[in-house]
Amino acid sequence: MKFTASQIAELVSGKVEGNTNVEVNRLSKIEEGTDGSLSFLANPKYTSYLYTTNASITLVSDEFVAEKKFKTTLIRVADPYEAFSKLLEHYNQIKQKLPSGIAKTAIVSEDAHVAKSVFVGDFSRVGSNTVLEHHVLIHPHAFVGDNVSIGTNTIIHIGARILNDTVIGENCVIHSNAVIGADGFGWAPNENGSYDKVPQTGNVVIGDHVDIGANTTIDRATLGATKIGTGVKLDNLIQIGHNVEIGDHTVIAAQTGIAGSTKIGTHCQIGGQVGISGHLTIGNRVGIQAKSGILKNIKDDSKIMGYPAFDYTAFNKSYVHFRNLHTHITDLQTLKKRLEHE
Amino acid sequence: MKFTASQIAELVSGKVEGNTNVEVNRLSKIEEGTDGSLSFLANPKYTSYLYTTNASITLVSDEFVAEKKFKTTLIRVADPYEAFSKLLEHYNQIKQKLPSGIAKTAIVSEDAHVAKSVFVGDFSRVGSNTVLEHHVLIHPHAFVGDNVSIGTNTIIHIGARILNDTVIGENCVIHSNAVIGADGFGWAPNENGSYDKVPQTGNVVIGDHVDIGANTTIDRATLGATKIGTGVKLDNLIQIGHNVEIGDHTVIAAQTGIAGSTKIGTHCQIGGQVGISGHLTIGNRVGIQAKSGILKNIKDDSKIMGYPAFDYTAFNKSYVHFRNLHTHITDLQTLKKRLEHE
Amino acid sequence: MKFTASQIAELVSGKVEGNTNVEVNRLSKIEEGTDGSLSFLANPKYTSYLYTTNASITLVSDEFVAEKKFKTTLIRVADPYEAFSKLLEHYNQIKQKLPSGIAKTAIVSEDAHVAKSVFVGDFSRVGSNTVLEHHVLIHPHAFVGDNVSIGTNTIIHIGARILNDTVIGENCVIHSNAVIGADGFGWAPNENGSYDKVPQTGNVVIGDHVDIGANTTIDRATLGATKIGTGVKLDNLIQIGHNVEIGDHTVIAAQTGIAGSTKIGTHCQIGGQVGISGHLTIGNRVGIQAKSGILKNIKDDSKIMGYPAFDYTAFNKSYVHFRNLHTHITDLQTLKKRLEHE
Repeated sequence: MKFTASQIAELVSGKVEGNTNVEVNRLSKIEEGTDGSLSFLANPKYTSYLYTTNASITLVSDEFVAEKKFKTTLIRVADPYEAFSKLLEHYNQIKQKLPSGIAKTAIVSEDAHVAKSVFVGDFSRVGSNTVLEHHVLIHPHAFVGDNVSIGTNTIIHIGARILNDTVIGENCVIHSNAVIGADGFGWAPNENGSYDKVPQTGNVVIGDHVDIGANTTIDRATLGATKIGTGVKLDNLIQIGHNVEIGDHTVIAAQTGIAGSTKIGTHCQIGGQVGISGHLTIGNRVGIQAKSGILKNIKDDSKIMGYPAFDYTAFNKSYVHFRNLHTHITDLQTLKKRLEHE
Repeated sequence: MKFTASQIAELVSGKVEGNTNVEVNRLSKIEEGTDGSLSFLANPKYTSYLYTTNASITLVSDEFVAEKKFKTTLIRVADPYEAFSKLLEHYNQIKQKLPSGIAKTAIVSEDAHVAKSVFVGDFSRVGSNTVLEHHVLIHPHAFVGDNVSIGTNTIIHIGARILNDTVIGENCVIHSNAVIGADGFGWAPNENGSYDKVPQTGNVVIGDHVDIGANTTIDRATLGATKIGTGVKLDNLIQIGHNVEIGDHTVIAAQTGIAGSTKIGTHCQIGGQVGISGHLTIGNRVGIQAKSGILKNIKDDSKIMGYPAFDYTAFNKSYVHFRNLHTHITDLQTLKKRLEHE
Repeated sequence: MKFTASQIAELVSGKVEGNTNVEVNRLSKIEEGTDGSLSFLANPKYTSYLYTTNASITLVSDEFVAEKKFKTTLIRVADPYEAFSKLLEHYNQIKQKLPSGIAKTAIVSEDAHVAKSVFVGDFSRVGSNTVLEHHVLIHPHAFVGDNVSIGTNTIIHIGARILNDTVIGENCVIHSNAVIGADGFGWAPNENGSYDKVPQTGNVVIGDHVDIGANTTIDRATLGATKIGTGVKLDNLIQIGHNVEIGDHTVIAAQTGIAGSTKIGTHCQIGGQVGISGHLTIGNRVGIQAKSGILKNIKDDSKIMGYPAFDYTAFNKSYVHFRNLHTHITDLQTLKKRLEHE
């Protein structure tokens, strides 16, 4: 299937500059563009590639001003990255058709409530009293336990484990081998130094439009629910402890861990490999730099960094001095000696 | 099923203060208490909720002294958290019945030694020459390899992988998608810069009453065994390298990694996201703050923090100065200038 | 099966010193040696065990000079560790026979191209248009998607997920529950604070002789490919973001994370729990100390450490002062007071 520059321009509300009839049939990065591919220029760092790319069409910003010759046909748009994303989505929709039906090797409990449009793949198992709404996709090797509820259009990928009592909203994606609803890590110490398990009787409740990355784990609550708000995006290999609550539209990068009972606000941006202690309150719109360790409550709109973390700018000021600490301490020792000899 | 305050008091050896006939049929957090629920007050931070809770019954400490009016019926006990945990356990035991039998879609090797009370769930596979003792539960999608031994009452959750030659004691719980017995990471460098695999021929040996979290990985030994002592509790997403040994009743929080051949003592408490280098010896009763990086042997009873880690109190003293380093260095530069101009 | 010291010496091109007829039938660590076992001494730290070991045979270096009596028979070789590894490999080859054939419970798409010698284990699924070359082993519970290509002798372990369009070379090993080809973490912010998914249409391309650890995740590219070079060794629980490229023969320890679009050179050695930001270029032969956080491009042959990371030696110089910061700041304050009072 081929598209002309004019057709693409119409799809993305853009304006062609060059050959309106040139055709493309695939997408590429600007530095890997070839004859027949469509590319985009969003980050100014990549501008030099525009003059050398072999892509037939390149999406550029309305404000782009060329400083050299080039051969690609331009389509000018307000936001080239967004326009490219729109084309990608279009491409995906054409490529993918929704599967449906229950695979022969799948096991679906007789008393599960499964909408007709639902797909359950090979070797997957859906438990008792579980509700799967319209267009839910359960890919192969997945486990969906008892008393689970999964909303319309939600996708459970290969090998994900959705344990008993979990509630998942609409339009969510749970990636491969994620584990939702395993027991929280609660131990009551005995006098003899051993530990007794604190029963974990709560569940996990996930809002709409939530993405959960591959091999990420979200533990069920001791009591009540571990809560993931609407629009939350969790990357791979993240750990969410029992009774944690994450506010709407917060985004968390890979390998971050949040200990039990901590509450995170809305619209936060949390980097990778961050660790947040238990029983804390993190405000709204908080930015946490990758690898930070958080030991205290954090106010709304803070930007923090460090282990333990504090204000981002202050951390960096301190760290510049840390890097030069040998020089500073040598200076100090020189002064000290000089004064001692006075 | 309902219980009166008198009945609850008997179960937890407590003393009712209020309406001995009030009935409850579920558990709740104190801040989420409703008519018919039982709650508890253990952490003084939550005391204010006692005066507003709608829970019908609240477990409180013998020493609790109220400062305002409240409507909940109190049951006084020595340790409210422990009493509540006991009730939770009771609740769970009523709720859960042990499954048993081999699911039709499960595959159990003919020469496996499987006690009659054992449960093997859908799509699980139990290998050759493997021993499953009484009341072992192998939940769906789990893999138990060849020459494995699993002790009485141990539970293998959904999708856990217990690879060949692993030995697991009694009353253990292996959570979903954990991988026990994958090859250790051993590579012998060649002159040309590539690496040859060092064969990993040992196994993993796990004691009794051990919990292994979801998506945690424990590698088999190069030679001999990777050993996890009795009563050890490992949270989710932990990495245990080949030939590591962990002493009895040591507890480790999520996402911590322990490199090959390190020995950890008994009764240690290790925070989340800690990294411990290979070939080290960590003593008994050592406390390691979350996110620390350990590069040296650690003596018994140490409390450490930092990257690299050292004494906990010393680290925090240094860190206070680090936070104010800009002020200190400015002072230093002022002194230096002043002396230069004298 | 037993081997005499003479036979072992021939296998490893060594020279017997002691009883050439002593027999062994297994391997052991030197400190755990027993009658009938063969051990080795490579690390001088373990030399004391040589004088007490019960191993019947011990491999030692040509240059080893004993300082006490011992009873084990020596076999002298140029490199005892390498010789021992060779024996281990020999032992494994005898122990293991390659399985082949398709298990009854496996599902292999009719239009997959599967060589005759391929093994597909119980409950595994191989998708449409996928190519499995000679002696590929797909162990039980594994998922291999559509349009996947897997080269000769590559092993896919229990429960690994090889998602659509992935390309894997020859002689690779993908360990249990690893996820290759899940969607990259790409989100375009909306004006209202929510996020739209950036479609992830690329794939993952893995070279030859690559090892991928248990529960490690490698995301597919947004466009193009996430690339893992030949000879790369990845430990467990590692996160590789979309469009990352890792050069040949780079080795990465457990729980490290590499954010999207970063390029890593060849022959690097990267410790555990390292975090590397996105869109960076790391040179060749770079050494990164465990737990470091990398925020900038790194030149060839650098050795770095810290959070954020800088030169390894400089970091350690600064860190020595950090440890003593309280003393230094006290000195500084003393000087300041003294000068103020002058």
